[in-house]
Amino acid sequence: MTNQTEIQPKQEVVLTGDRTTGKLHLGHYVGSLKSRVQLQQQYETYIMLADVQALTTHFHNPGLLAESVRQVALDYLSVGIDPERATIFVQSMVPEIAELTIFYSMFVSVSSLRHNPTVKHEAQERGYEDLYYGFLGYPVSQAADITAFKASLVPAGEDQIPHIEQTRRIVRRFNELYAPVLVEPQILVGERLEGLDGGSKMSKSLGNAICLDSSTEEVRTQIRRAKTDPARIHKTDPGHPDICTIYGYHCIFRNEGSEEIREQCQKGGIGCAACKELVMEAIEEVMKPIRERREMYKNRPKDIDEILMAGTAKARKVASQTMSEVREAMGIDYFK
Amino acid sequence: MTNQTEIQPKQEVVLTGDRTTGKLHLGHYVGSLKSRVQLQQQYETYIMLADVQALTTHFHNPGLLAESVRQVALDYLSVGIDPERATIFVQSMVPEIAELTIFYSMFVSVSSLRHNPTVKHEAQERGYEDLYYGFLGYPVSQAADITAFKASLVPAGEDQIPHIEQTRRIVRRFNELYAPVLVEPQILVGERLEGLDGGSKMSKSLGNAICLDSSTEEVRTQIRRAKTDPARIHKTDPGHPDICTIYGYHCIFRNEGSEEIREQCQKGGIGCAACKELVMEAIEEVMKPIRERREMYKNRPKDIDEILMAGTAKARKVASQTMSEVREAMGIDYFK
Ligand code: SF4
Ligand code: SF4
Repeated sequence: MTNQTEIQPKQEVVLTGDRTTGKLHLGHYVGSLKSRVQLQQQYETYIMLADVQALTTHFHNPGLLAESVRQVALDYLSVGIDPERATIFVQSMVPEIAELTIFYSMFVSVSSLRHNPTVKHEAQERGYEDLYYGFLGYPVSQAADITAFKASLVPAGEDQIPHIEQTRRIVRRFNELYAPVLVEPQILVGERLEGLDGGSKMSKSLGNAICLDSSTEEVRTQIRRAKTDPARIHKTDPGHPDICTIYGYHCIFRNEGSEEIREQCQKGGIGCAACKELVMEAIEEVMKPIRERREMYKNRPKDIDEILMAGTAKARKVASQTMSEVREAMGIDYFK
Repeated sequence: MTNQTEIQPKQEVVLTGDRTTGKLHLGHYVGSLKSRVQLQQQYETYIMLADVQALTTHFHNPGLLAESVRQVALDYLSVGIDPERATIFVQSMVPEIAELTIFYSMFVSVSSLRHNPTVKHEAQERGYEDLYYGFLGYPVSQAADITAFKASLVPAGEDQIPHIEQTRRIVRRFNELYAPVLVEPQILVGERLEGLDGGSKMSKSLGNAICLDSSTEEVRTQIRRAKTDPARIHKTDPGHPDICTIYGYHCIFRNEGSEEIREQCQKGGIGCAACKELVMEAIEEVMKPIRERREMYKNRPKDIDEILMAGTAKARKVASQTMSEVREAMGIDYFK
């Protein structure tokens, strides 16, 4: 609520998104989607279908992108992203992002990119014999995504911290070189969800994920197979919740009940099957409204396309305004 | 002249351009401008004011770009580039070039760029402690420039050979990954003009250049000061034309007379002053029509801006057509 004597602050902007390399899962929900649904109430929210970023690792398989763009959009709508409140857009259809990437790349050193821990780690993990130029420049492209919309808040996983730091450096350098046009973003670090196999983050490529389009039966089967404390054979064996994936799920999905589970597990007062049952119920409570919304949108592919086209048109308008300011700051708006 | 039984071949496309980092000089004329004036008669010709490429080394001084964009455009018109025949455009105003650069960068390895001899050499020469990401990607950006217009011929200096080779590799890779949409260009290597100090290529940054806007008096003074065979003190001393810059100018500017000069110099039959006089006359013959055209355009900055705006609009149309084909080939034209 504002009153007339208050100065209305300029609305702050949130930018998030996902690489379009497959369906989203509960890890995305916990880490970012849940908070986006909240943030869209108070912030000008832009959600990007990051198909260009997907190309950095999937350039040889762009067919996957077309499929995923729509799958991920459907996931967004299903979790409660409201296209009236949030702008969902396709990255490759906003050329201003490509232009900003090129401009920023002039003053970002190759060595700062090589030392980016996420680039380093991903390059090791994927076992590239050599880096591709676009892959190396992923943090520059991300800076372009964020700054094109003057986002001040970026909800993302903690693995993104070094990237956002790189964006902040790029913003400071640009503003110092030319004119203070760009906004330095903050990261809003989301919760991390362990995968069903325990030990690593939930991730589709590791096959340890519960996809957001899973049926009740699928959730049930997956939770039943999930790894728990291997020391527990009988229900009365004392357990170690801190090494149990399911205990982690209790903490995230049924916060209030988790302390009791911890005690019961430690003293052998609950069996793993019963413990899992409680988690399943809690996950079902999350999944139910998601499934309902999915049902609503599933057979309306045209509507989804229209949402994406309208969102992209709006995103372009905003990005193109930023681009004008960038050109003016750099003194390359020759014919103005 | 064509007749109805002949199939009209699709007109071939030429793409050239210059970095907008200062006025052009006789080295540019001999190496490329002269041939562009010829090529525009038979080819669909695009001439690019490469301000984004200029940023790779001048990002800290973009003010120079705005000045140079118009200076170089005036140089083009002065040498006889005809805006009715050739399309002069501003690189930074064609976002499709930025988009293509991003797409190509996905499958170009960092090591292939690092080993590009021109990148290597320029990095050494400019004494960068470290490379900037955009500078390293200069050959990728050049591939985007050329392919955006499906150019099959690129008139350029021999130092550009490795870059065009890189473009050809990118074209082959793209066509093989997606669909045969892009055209593999050939380089048309221009003549090399020595600088006035002898020994290195004419270059503004080395201070050994005759700018295209020089007056008769300036040309005269510069040629008088030009380095010749240091062994010649008296007019009758036998000279060594092969180590003399001025002899090189004879070969280029008065082809037919050069053999005689060679003989006269070797047998001490001509003095350096008289020899230089002949070169001056030949250069004046080149410069005279250039000066006349410059007089015509000099006080019409608005007309020049209009030529550039119209050229850029046309270039965008063509580049955007290529971009559509690229998107279709990659399968990322989602809403078509
Ligand atoms: S009782 Fe619950 S928390 Fe304890 S090991 Fe079994 S599944 Fe894990
Ligand atoms: S006579 Fe001419 S070619 Fe010979 S050294 Fe002198 S300037 Fe050079």
